[in-house]
Amino acid sequence: MVGGTGTIGSAVTTELAKLHDVITVGRISGDYHVDITDRSTISKMFQKIGPFDALVATLGAVHFAPLAKMKHENYMLGLQSKLMGQVDLVLTGLDYINHHGSFTLTSGILATDPIVSGSSASMVNNALHGFVIGAAIEMPKNIRINVVSPTIITESLPNYGDMFLGFKPVDVETVAFAYSKSVNGAQTGQIYKVGY
Amino acid sequence: MVGGTGTIGSAVTTELAKLHDVITVGRISGDYHVDITDRSTISKMFQKIGPFDALVATLGAVHFAPLAKMKHENYMLGLQSKLMGQVDLVLTGLDYINHHGSFTLTSGILATDPIVSGSSASMVNNALHGFVIGAAIEMPKNIRINVVSPTIITESLPNYGDMFLGFKPVDVETVAFAYSKSVNGAQTGQIYKVGY
Repeated sequence: MVGGTGTIGSAVTTELAKLHDVITVGRISGDYHVDITDRSTISKMFQKIGPFDALVATLGAVHFAPLAKMKHENYMLGLQSKLMGQVDLVLTGLDYINHHGSFTLTSGILATDPIVSGSSASMVNNALHGFVIGAAIEMPKNIRINVVSPTIITESLPNYGDMFLGFKPVDVETVAFAYSKSVNGAQTGQIYKVGY
Repeated sequence: MVGGTGTIGSAVTTELAKLHDVITVGRISGDYHVDITDRSTISKMFQKIGPFDALVATLGAVHFAPLAKMKHENYMLGLQSKLMGQVDLVLTGLDYINHHGSFTLTSGILATDPIVSGSSASMVNNALHGFVIGAAIEMPKNIRINVVSPTIITESLPNYGDMFLGFKPVDVETVAFAYSKSVNGAQTGQIYKVGY
């Protein structure tokens, strides 16, 4: 559970812990630490943890700002953090994951339902969908890969609710089900849309 | 017409030239030159050309390789060239484009229909779709933005046909119609899928 101490990550950890031994990884908290924009920390994390059955990523930053204020660098932040950070977890994780393992990444509703100031999020979330459908058909060792694309979650309304007016929120426990389906099921190359 | 001397770009230039004065821009050929991965050349291009009504981009590189051989840097190539190269044309072009102008970018069928060795293309093409739907709702001055997503074109079969077995090709003239619709029409935030 990379990002296992965040809002979504905590709920997913609770759900998966019912059936599995869960290792939490965060930037600062958790059993192990990683900065997904720094590939050397990704390698060290996998070396320490060793073989595993499923990686779930529920983290990554994106810059929100009006289009008129968005610069090249602001888009690069999302590409380097939420997009390539999660992709690098897969690329490096492939050396450590067990046969029949799974990767589950996180995108978001802005992939198909844009908001003002969200052009980078729409870009990054869609890019994650593209990577997942592309990578799924080339995974070795019967490894699967999916992505969960949630709408705004109820628990995040105090922080982001004003940007998502008119978006029906879902509880984080509902979102956690999609991760469970990805980890415990047999599907691959799926984009699990939750709440929309 | 940035990329106006390529296979698709040439056909689009022919189509648009029936009604418009077309300025072609290429890396080496064309009326003006640009390297879309070098933002200083993008700025210089716009400074030389001045105000314009429509920008069409039909260029950008992506690395094709089996997933097992794809490294971080290979994905970054597509993100910096085909994705951010086209995005940077928009971000800088906004300072020069006339009211009621339009941007038309180019993605491709791998956005939703992946092939082996195409995970970067699936990522980048989808990212372009996300940027376009996100940017469209924030465009100033009644400016529009769309993206054309063609399948494999007949003219490219000698080079890429082996990777696209089972994909029904379309002639480049058919693809050019979509660019004409984007430039001459009034729609915005559209993903024009051609041949699929």
